[in-house]
Amino acid sequence: MAAKKAKKTTKPAKAKKAAKAVKYVYSFGGGKADGRADMKNLLGGKGANLAEMGKIGLPVPPGFTLTTEVCTAYYANNRKYPAEVKPQVEAAMVKVEKVMGLAFGSPDKPLLVSVRSGARQSMPGMMETVLNVGLTTKTIPGLVAMTGGNERFVWDAYRRLIMMYSDVVMEKAAGVEPAEGMGIRMQLEHLMELKKEQRGITQDTQMSVEDLKDLCAQFRAKVKQVLGKEFPDDATEQLWGGIGAVFQSWMGRRAVAYRRIEGIPQEWGTATNVQAMVFGNMGDDSATGVAFTRNPATGDRNFYGEWLVNAQGEDVVAGIRTPSPLNKANKTEHTRDLLSLEEAMPATYRQLVQVRNQLEKHYRDMQDIEFTIQQGKLYMLQTRTGKRTGLAAVHVAVDMVKEKLIDSKTALLRVSSAQLDELLHPSLDPAAEQKVSALTKGLPAGPGGATGQIVLTADKAEQLGKTGQKVILVRNETSPEDVHGMYAAAGILTAKGGMTSHAALVARGWGKCCIVGCGALKINTAAGTVTAGGKTLKEGDWISLNGSRGLVYEGQLALKAADPDSDPAYKQLMKWADATRRLGVWANADTPEDARRALGFGAEGIGLLRTEHMFYGKGAEEPLFRLRKMIHSDSVDERRKALDELFPYVKSDMKGVLESMNGKPVTIRLLDPPLHEFVPQGAEERQKLATSLGISLDDLAKRAEGLHETNPMMGHRGVRLGITYPEVSEMQIRAILEAAAELLKAGKKPMPEIMIPVTCDVNELKNQEAIVNRVAAEVKAKYGAKKLPFHFGTMIEIPRAALLADEMAESAQFFSFGTNDLTQMSYGFSRDDIGGFVPDYIAGKILPGDPFQSLDQKGVGQLMKMSVTAGRKTRPDLKVGICGEHGGDPRSVAFCHRIGLNYVSCSPFRVPVARLAAAQAVVGKLPEEK
Amino acid sequence: MAAKKAKKTTKPAKAKKAAKAVKYVYSFGGGKADGRADMKNLLGGKGANLAEMGKIGLPVPPGFTLTTEVCTAYYANNRKYPAEVKPQVEAAMVKVEKVMGLAFGSPDKPLLVSVRSGARQSMPGMMETVLNVGLTTKTIPGLVAMTGGNERFVWDAYRRLIMMYSDVVMEKAAGVEPAEGMGIRMQLEHLMELKKEQRGITQDTQMSVEDLKDLCAQFRAKVKQVLGKEFPDDATEQLWGGIGAVFQSWMGRRAVAYRRIEGIPQEWGTATNVQAMVFGNMGDDSATGVAFTRNPATGDRNFYGEWLVNAQGEDVVAGIRTPSPLNKANKTEHTRDLLSLEEAMPATYRQLVQVRNQLEKHYRDMQDIEFTIQQGKLYMLQTRTGKRTGLAAVHVAVDMVKEKLIDSKTALLRVSSAQLDELLHPSLDPAAEQKVSALTKGLPAGPGGATGQIVLTADKAEQLGKTGQKVILVRNETSPEDVHGMYAAAGILTAKGGMTSHAALVARGWGKCCIVGCGALKINTAAGTVTAGGKTLKEGDWISLNGSRGLVYEGQLALKAADPDSDPAYKQLMKWADATRRLGVWANADTPEDARRALGFGAEGIGLLRTEHMFYGKGAEEPLFRLRKMIHSDSVDERRKALDELFPYVKSDMKGVLESMNGKPVTIRLLDPPLHEFVPQGAEERQKLATSLGISLDDLAKRAEGLHETNPMMGHRGVRLGITYPEVSEMQIRAILEAAAELLKAGKKPMPEIMIPVTCDVNELKNQEAIVNRVAAEVKAKYGAKKLPFHFGTMIEIPRAALLADEMAESAQFFSFGTNDLTQMSYGFSRDDIGGFVPDYIAGKILPGDPFQSLDQKGVGQLMKMSVTAGRKTRPDLKVGICGEHGGDPRSVAFCHRIGLNYVSCSPFRVPVARLAAAQAVVGKLPEEK
Repeated sequence: MAAKKAKKTTKPAKAKKAAKAVKYVYSFGGGKADGRADMKNLLGGKGANLAEMGKIGLPVPPGFTLTTEVCTAYYANNRKYPAEVKPQVEAAMVKVEKVMGLAFGSPDKPLLVSVRSGARQSMPGMMETVLNVGLTTKTIPGLVAMTGGNERFVWDAYRRLIMMYSDVVMEKAAGVEPAEGMGIRMQLEHLMELKKEQRGITQDTQMSVEDLKDLCAQFRAKVKQVLGKEFPDDATEQLWGGIGAVFQSWMGRRAVAYRRIEGIPQEWGTATNVQAMVFGNMGDDSATGVAFTRNPATGDRNFYGEWLVNAQGEDVVAGIRTPSPLNKANKTEHTRDLLSLEEAMPATYRQLVQVRNQLEKHYRDMQDIEFTIQQGKLYMLQTRTGKRTGLAAVHVAVDMVKEKLIDSKTALLRVSSAQLDELLHPSLDPAAEQKVSALTKGLPAGPGGATGQIVLTADKAEQLGKTGQKVILVRNETSPEDVHGMYAAAGILTAKGGMTSHAALVARGWGKCCIVGCGALKINTAAGTVTAGGKTLKEGDWISLNGSRGLVYEGQLALKAADPDSDPAYKQLMKWADATRRLGVWANADTPEDARRALGFGAEGIGLLRTEHMFYGKGAEEPLFRLRKMIHSDSVDERRKALDELFPYVKSDMKGVLESMNGKPVTIRLLDPPLHEFVPQGAEERQKLATSLGISLDDLAKRAEGLHETNPMMGHRGVRLGITYPEVSEMQIRAILEAAAELLKAGKKPMPEIMIPVTCDVNELKNQEAIVNRVAAEVKAKYGAKKLPFHFGTMIEIPRAALLADEMAESAQFFSFGTNDLTQMSYGFSRDDIGGFVPDYIAGKILPGDPFQSLDQKGVGQLMKMSVTAGRKTRPDLKVGICGEHGGDPRSVAFCHRIGLNYVSCSPFRVPVARLAAAQAVVGKLPEEK
Repeated sequence: MAAKKAKKTTKPAKAKKAAKAVKYVYSFGGGKADGRADMKNLLGGKGANLAEMGKIGLPVPPGFTLTTEVCTAYYANNRKYPAEVKPQVEAAMVKVEKVMGLAFGSPDKPLLVSVRSGARQSMPGMMETVLNVGLTTKTIPGLVAMTGGNERFVWDAYRRLIMMYSDVVMEKAAGVEPAEGMGIRMQLEHLMELKKEQRGITQDTQMSVEDLKDLCAQFRAKVKQVLGKEFPDDATEQLWGGIGAVFQSWMGRRAVAYRRIEGIPQEWGTATNVQAMVFGNMGDDSATGVAFTRNPATGDRNFYGEWLVNAQGEDVVAGIRTPSPLNKANKTEHTRDLLSLEEAMPATYRQLVQVRNQLEKHYRDMQDIEFTIQQGKLYMLQTRTGKRTGLAAVHVAVDMVKEKLIDSKTALLRVSSAQLDELLHPSLDPAAEQKVSALTKGLPAGPGGATGQIVLTADKAEQLGKTGQKVILVRNETSPEDVHGMYAAAGILTAKGGMTSHAALVARGWGKCCIVGCGALKINTAAGTVTAGGKTLKEGDWISLNGSRGLVYEGQLALKAADPDSDPAYKQLMKWADATRRLGVWANADTPEDARRALGFGAEGIGLLRTEHMFYGKGAEEPLFRLRKMIHSDSVDERRKALDELFPYVKSDMKGVLESMNGKPVTIRLLDPPLHEFVPQGAEERQKLATSLGISLDDLAKRAEGLHETNPMMGHRGVRLGITYPEVSEMQIRAILEAAAELLKAGKKPMPEIMIPVTCDVNELKNQEAIVNRVAAEVKAKYGAKKLPFHFGTMIEIPRAALLADEMAESAQFFSFGTNDLTQMSYGFSRDDIGGFVPDYIAGKILPGDPFQSLDQKGVGQLMKMSVTAGRKTRPDLKVGICGEHGGDPRSVAFCHRIGLNYVSCSPFRVPVARLAAAQAVVGKLPEEK
């Protein structure tokens, strides 16, 4: 179709319908635009920003966007377009033709266009693009004429069109199975290789015009032969083919998989952008480049980018030619000899700098731009918010406040939790990481990077760790018995388990690099080997982990240490966060060392000290042994004896933590897990225990068997132990209160908060409260203390406790939501067993995600909200916090803010993240992931 | 104190305080009374009814009651009485003296009194009584004179006073440790034995006045020697000693233990009754007796009781002398030669009959009375509602409606669930049971009685059962693999497990006699022996079980069959119940046989058909084998093959049940339990399965291990199986719908309701609904059916489903509360593991009872209420039922009525109980246990 003809036939029809018709096509270019930057949902990110750039007068090649509603309607309507689409496209094309002074399909002044996808959220490389659309045997001569007889350029463009179009439109979008297992594109590339071979050349650029013409003829014949169809020689047919291919690619296998991983809803659809082609490959006065308005790695204010002379955009991205730095400031050791755009085309560069300044002022954020220079003229092809590292995010945000581009509240929203988290852990040096490819991938369970020698047992990890060797503990999965080795290791890698497996929980708690669920890993402990990605490594071989991304590398990669406090920008941002947030941020910490780390990260209290964790790792063999003795006791007397032995250890640990947190609350949860968790597995340990108890191994086994439960998570644990064995509660309470009394005497300010776990009824609390009050009186008498300040409260982690929160608050002075268990019970999901079905649930969209990672606000959150309201009705000054894993999850933190919690408590390394998230919750919306 | 003196000193004081003072003492007698029958909480049962009898003019010896508030105040006030008590007692005593024409402590006309406990709820034998209070060396001569010189009677009364008082008041209530391990009472009895030995006599009655006088002197010396105190020789001191002893006994070890078992709150306290003594042992014109106004075993209208001439009440109860029948109609084979009261004292008997008639008219219920005849004069000592058997309860209630004593609504409240239940099961003949003592006791898990030979394995039970032998299966505990043996056995006895253990659940479902948790039982399977109560029985020995009371007997006791429908009174009562109730009553049934039984018991539908139960027992080896094959499949293909093999069995069973219930709804729950439950344990079965799957035993073990879960109750089960293995759901759905289609074709009216278990999110339902709709369309096409009526719904058994009921109702047409799981998840109590702590919880009053037995209305009930409201908001015609074990628990049924459920579903044998309970809920209050 020629544009003029189209005008005549379609315009009246369109005009008639216009009043009622849905607007499916939005034009831009020539200093005007139908759309705006905030219309991303309708126009996609690319389309909306092209429109915005057009509106503010930037040099954008004209074009138009078919909205995401076209995509939705297309799929809703059995892959057919709404009737309005065709006339609207034709009318929009006329506008493009007018701006460009060209006509689509015209033999004289042919307009070529690109057809590109553009979804709401960037899905890089997941969908299709077709360039040079409109080039046909009819339009080739006109283009040759327009380029001053540059036949080589035109035939090369035609070759590219055939290759791209036959692949994307005629094969993939049409759903044609590749012949002989080889796609059309590879077959065409093969022809091109043959041609170069025949001609004795190696570079594409060495091909002559005749070579290219011959190759195009071969290509068209091959397309016909393989795909059974002529390559379309009509511009309009090419256009609709291209548009169709983009919409088809929304449901392509890669795109569907990507959306599943990224959590992008299928209903969003993609927009399609049709835009006049401009060419950076029209000679040495042409160029193409990509740039960030600031340095995306550091956040520095310098204009940062790369360019290639006489090239198309794809060439920069594809990495076939090494691009040059954009300006002198950008040059590095490796690129200092390359000519920058600043030097090569100073005037155009100055124009680009102006565009950069205008964009930053307009968008008030760092932009990622693409540009093309065609015969000296600058065209802007894309702008979008630039992805950046955590460091850059913090710096750009803080700098922009100084530059008065944004206010501090906006700055808080400019840094995502993941970005902040990057700053808190040592990480693999990105430069080192870029040079090698990963051996395999698992779930990013513990942040940062680590490098070390493979060890396969916890004991070996500890042994080598003590000598200062860096080791990575590699296991199928870990158990509490491995904790000493996990602690000694620089990083942990497991073949099984999810984001809330034992390894993941422990590692996150310590801020230790950890990758779990690395299914491709085959561990042969007997042979001392680990196989992955086709390679077999031995114990002692070096590997490196990127725990933030779940990547496992062979060899010893360089590390970059984290020291956020040395960065004034980080400190400034956190200052703003602290000034803004209403939620307190406490930490989960089990040892004095943890407590000090938590304070360093800005924790205002300890929200969860797990008594039993005192018995893991770090020279805790003696207390662990005595704990086991207590657990395997068969009578109150035996138990009391073991408890007496245990007492000094517990008291000393309590004292250490209370002293570290001097003047800040320390919430101590009494013994929580099912006792059988502490049954020793090793033969040596069993023998030692039996000997100490004066019983046979058989008797020990019987006692251990007595601890077995069918569903231990809902068994004899938490307060249930404290009620059946009040002496166990009493020992812990006495240890806490004596520690506090001694500190008080020494002029310190201990603030213990005694927390009862796994409660379901206020009578459980009253029972334990009576012990607390009795012991407190005894301790006061013993130390001659007039008062002994402490609080008494409960976990809310059992649905019934949440439902009866009004009663629970009669005894409890504070609540702390244990959302791990509350999630388990509310869903009836055993965290240890969800591997069998939750992946299918998420894949099948039955659940939006793993509820153990981000709080289920509808269900579990409803219980929490009810509890807060009911609890405060009974006790208006009830303090309410959360100490489950969700306490460090930004979305969950925002929810906790909304329902009026007093504080969140999370692992020390997550404290800064929680502080930021708590501030973001006040400002009112979550940052988009950048 | 002499009465006259008391009058002078205390009356003015009392009058002054009267306006403000609490009334602690209530008088009765002389045709008047301060109290009434409905003041049981304040006066105790005995005191309230004495007052009531006094008020309506019956011949009650005068007296007064110290209220339960005295008891409460006594304990609240460090075991001291409120100041008002003493003057009020003194004033009340004056009234008694006036009526009797005697004076307490007077040498001339001494008044003797009894001091007895009387709690709100009868606690037989748990608290203390002191008789003959007021007999001292000063008053003995006066009493001798009053009895016409009956010295023997008076000195015998004095001997009894010393024995009783020194024991109850001076030793027990005073908390004196028995000397040399022997209580004072036994020491005094020893003295009496010595005396009789010296005198060469054997009977107490052979002792002379001198013997008694000497004995009393010895007694007083012994008391002084052993207890270090003189026996009090002052009437007032005796009185306060007696009152104190009664109040003390409220906290006695026996009483505390009894209250714990019966669930009587400690705060209730006991009242104390002080009443003028009358003597049935004043000669042959004196007598004492107990009677029921109707026959308490059968409910027949005849006046039923026993009496003893010249005896005190205690003699009847103690069983030293054989009492005579009250009247000629009462005489039995064994008592036909004894003289009835009707014959011996016809006038007094007629007077007693009049009293009986008056009491029944007044109380409008069957009464249990005590009376004494002193020298020809009738005195009423007690009346209370008579305890009765289930049969009697039904008959008395129905008869009294006929007699216009009560209306039918009241009749419904006169029969408790436990009583109705007695009528529904064969039971041990109470006569046979009375003759032997129980070997041991366990929990009454399955109702009725059974007798059979001991077998220790399920296979043997089945084998002998088939030959018609009656066997009792005795196991430590049972598992689904024992079900065939359990089915074959006449009764089941286990050493472990609680009221909701596997054995208990299965047995109750079948209405089979079962005793569980019989801890004293030692089973030695190798030796084939069972030891209990010091006896060792062998396999093949006969035992008998009383499943309603948990008693185990050695030997073959006689049984009484149940056939309630042959009893018009039962039918009448149930007719009233059905006319009154609003709740539907459905049954849980898994087979056509169950369904027919349920219909027989009046079920209006099936609320729970557990697909997997089809595979248990009763020639279900083939389908069970195929189910196992399906479960151990390793691929969709393997699974589909096994499912195809399973399909005809499932369909045929479904058809059977749907046909049995023609025209009534059948709610079919798709596969629910964790799959590992079906892993075969026996070597033979494992081999068969491995062979059939064509894999090695090792591979089979691996597959089975893959099914292992840490917390199976919260693991891969219910709808989670249906989502990960949609073909499993599909097979079941197809079986149901094809069965329905075939019945429809045959002119039947199948009403299947497809129910999805273990849901937590509406998306799970939508997923399964899609399968249902697809299969329904296919089945319609296959059978050429125009419509295929069925409903689609869900269990609400996971807290989150309850919380999001509004969403669940978008897909579900009905809800059925699975309160077993809902209780597990709400409390975080694994039913299999609560044995470790729930007994301590109940003993320590942390929980009022086992929440798996009676619904926790506060917590779990709150979730249910929320669900009903939210679900009906989305779908106003949402049908809501309950199918957990609670559906047959009367208190839970009443709750279900109150929150507006449409129906309850319970095991067939509980259906009549649920019908009655549903009617009682409408009438408005639960019957008191009788």
